[in-house]
Amino acid sequence: MNRTVNASTGEPVAPGGCIGILGGGQLGRMLATAATELGLTVHVYCPDENSPAFDVAAEKTVAAYDDAEALARFADNVDVVTYEFENVPAETVRILTEHAPVRPGALALATAQDRLAEKTFIAEQGIRTAPFRAVDDAAGLAQAIADLGTPSILKTRRFGYDGKGQTRIEAGPAPQAALDEIGNAPAILEGFVPFEREISVIVARGQDGAIAAYDPVENIHKNHILDRSFAPATLTPGIAAEAIEIASTLVRELDYVGVMGVELFLLPPDGKGDKDRLLVNEIAPRVHNSGHWTMDACLVGQFEQHVRAICGWPLGSAARHSDAVMTNLIGEDAADWTALAADPGYAIHLYGKAEIRAGRKMGHVTRLFPIGERPAVTPN
Amino acid sequence: MNRTVNASTGEPVAPGGCIGILGGGQLGRMLATAATELGLTVHVYCPDENSPAFDVAAEKTVAAYDDAEALARFADNVDVVTYEFENVPAETVRILTEHAPVRPGALALATAQDRLAEKTFIAEQGIRTAPFRAVDDAAGLAQAIADLGTPSILKTRRFGYDGKGQTRIEAGPAPQAALDEIGNAPAILEGFVPFEREISVIVARGQDGAIAAYDPVENIHKNHILDRSFAPATLTPGIAAEAIEIASTLVRELDYVGVMGVELFLLPPDGKGDKDRLLVNEIAPRVHNSGHWTMDACLVGQFEQHVRAICGWPLGSAARHSDAVMTNLIGEDAADWTALAADPGYAIHLYGKAEIRAGRKMGHVTRLFPIGERPAVTPN
Repeated sequence: MNRTVNASTGEPVAPGGCIGILGGGQLGRMLATAATELGLTVHVYCPDENSPAFDVAAEKTVAAYDDAEALARFADNVDVVTYEFENVPAETVRILTEHAPVRPGALALATAQDRLAEKTFIAEQGIRTAPFRAVDDAAGLAQAIADLGTPSILKTRRFGYDGKGQTRIEAGPAPQAALDEIGNAPAILEGFVPFEREISVIVARGQDGAIAAYDPVENIHKNHILDRSFAPATLTPGIAAEAIEIASTLVRELDYVGVMGVELFLLPPDGKGDKDRLLVNEIAPRVHNSGHWTMDACLVGQFEQHVRAICGWPLGSAARHSDAVMTNLIGEDAADWTALAADPGYAIHLYGKAEIRAGRKMGHVTRLFPIGERPAVTPN
Repeated sequence: MNRTVNASTGEPVAPGGCIGILGGGQLGRMLATAATELGLTVHVYCPDENSPAFDVAAEKTVAAYDDAEALARFADNVDVVTYEFENVPAETVRILTEHAPVRPGALALATAQDRLAEKTFIAEQGIRTAPFRAVDDAAGLAQAIADLGTPSILKTRRFGYDGKGQTRIEAGPAPQAALDEIGNAPAILEGFVPFEREISVIVARGQDGAIAAYDPVENIHKNHILDRSFAPATLTPGIAAEAIEIASTLVRELDYVGVMGVELFLLPPDGKGDKDRLLVNEIAPRVHNSGHWTMDACLVGQFEQHVRAICGWPLGSAARHSDAVMTNLIGEDAADWTALAADPGYAIHLYGKAEIRAGRKMGHVTRLFPIGERPAVTPN
């Protein structure tokens, strides 16, 4: 059946309707569960026939992301399409959009896929980022290093995640070697930011323009992968409000629909108060690992919130009933599941991945605490 | 593959294992979601091809409950079998048990399926029930009425739920007419109990014998169907502890594995203190509607708890982080879903049933409150 009537009218997707999810990993899986809990059905599209999200999807399509015919058939059979990863090819989105609404839309994807476009967009909103320069070749990199100094970080414009596609540049630059290290892809150089902490804001925007943000959390990384999120971050009220205001500005100016993750750096105090201590590191046009705590600590978690937004429902409350600490289970962390199960303080979430691999996100656990009683952030 | 190794060794079902669920309604659906969240896969068996639980099951079997071949194939492909309804035929359980462990086991099912066996078992534990007599014919009913007086309630021994299969007997008895009303099935007569309130306890017992009980809740019915549950019930500490002790005794004496719902009546004060004010109305050898609040108000809800128990995992904590009021959405209650979605205080759970019918459980909503701040119970 062709359901594109919803694309034109903007009618909400009612219970019984079907949402299509591109990508079958853990984010797609948790989106699928949340959608089903609202009485919707889910169709997951993924090239990997062993995708974790298939376990909780009423319908599935196993096909490549450039299979135009499969994409069209998929989109014809759902009421709205969303995705769990930001590197959806533009051509894929174009094909899908002819058959069903795609939310969040193409502008958000294009912006988030390209670090240069992303940082340019953020800066245009009057929001701070690390200083940056576009880098296309060795000469450009040499000029960028001259402008921004060292240490600085060379990053591919596209397809970077969890520390991949980037290299740190120290004094005594060897531009071509650094470019070789990132595969000579189009890049940007980012000036070094001596930040004090990383925080993030999970923000949602509905089709009606309403915005709901969860309180900022503080994130601790290990081996460039998120290790733990502490909710809420310990911030002055002014900084917390500014973080939410920044996230809200970004979704508003992108005419965004859905949940977005906004990673920010908090600079050390400079003696001038709270002003200008936040800058945006990057945005993710999707549900975000640093928002997993909301599943257990809020009445409406980020996965349900995203589904509400893309389906044209009113957003739910982003208030939390508990403080929380979320810990990722990476690789072998998930092997001793009996110890995890024996800890009465853990809400356990395992992603159903058959094989444990180093660096692979296998699951997460969340501890709840009464409001105001979460333990202090401990570094790795 | 044949996985009966687990049946003999009692090894826990590890993540990646598969649980089989008999019955595809909302309880099976919520069990499936909870199991998947623990990294297990789910195989749902139900004769109705439109079963809500199929939407979140990795595997499904559409077959009758007396299809021996389908049952055997189903059980051969799962690590443990459980069920969402107590009226599983004994022969079905016998077939399944040859191929996989069935939890809770046959004794619990046989006891809960038959009101006479159930009340006899409960009384044997020294726990109060309404006075009762077995009734097989008009003469027996006349004698039972003579013993217990009127008003009293005639109930079929088997297959009653939500007020079906029962009739109230007032003074001036017409035994045969009453028996006709319940189809002349084997029955029991229960003496009238002028109870003050109905409460229930959701209790779990693990394979290791550990017991975890959620705090008792108070239930309000409408048209013989659960309307609302208030968590926790307002009880003296002594009565709350006695309710939990009663529920714990029952699961222990049944050598029960899984979650059980225990409905109790609280008698009015008799001036002699808290003693002897509780009697058991009935037990349900499964997750229970009056435990749905635990999904949102506890780190480990009843569905996950049941999965943990039947899989041989340690039980989770039954502590709650919030007080709660759960309201069932019956029939047309679910029609105005936009109003439900617009209430920021609701955790919404819709069961994915295509057709709204009078008296049909379509979903439920839960409101959370800080501990100690739930609103007072209001009658219908």
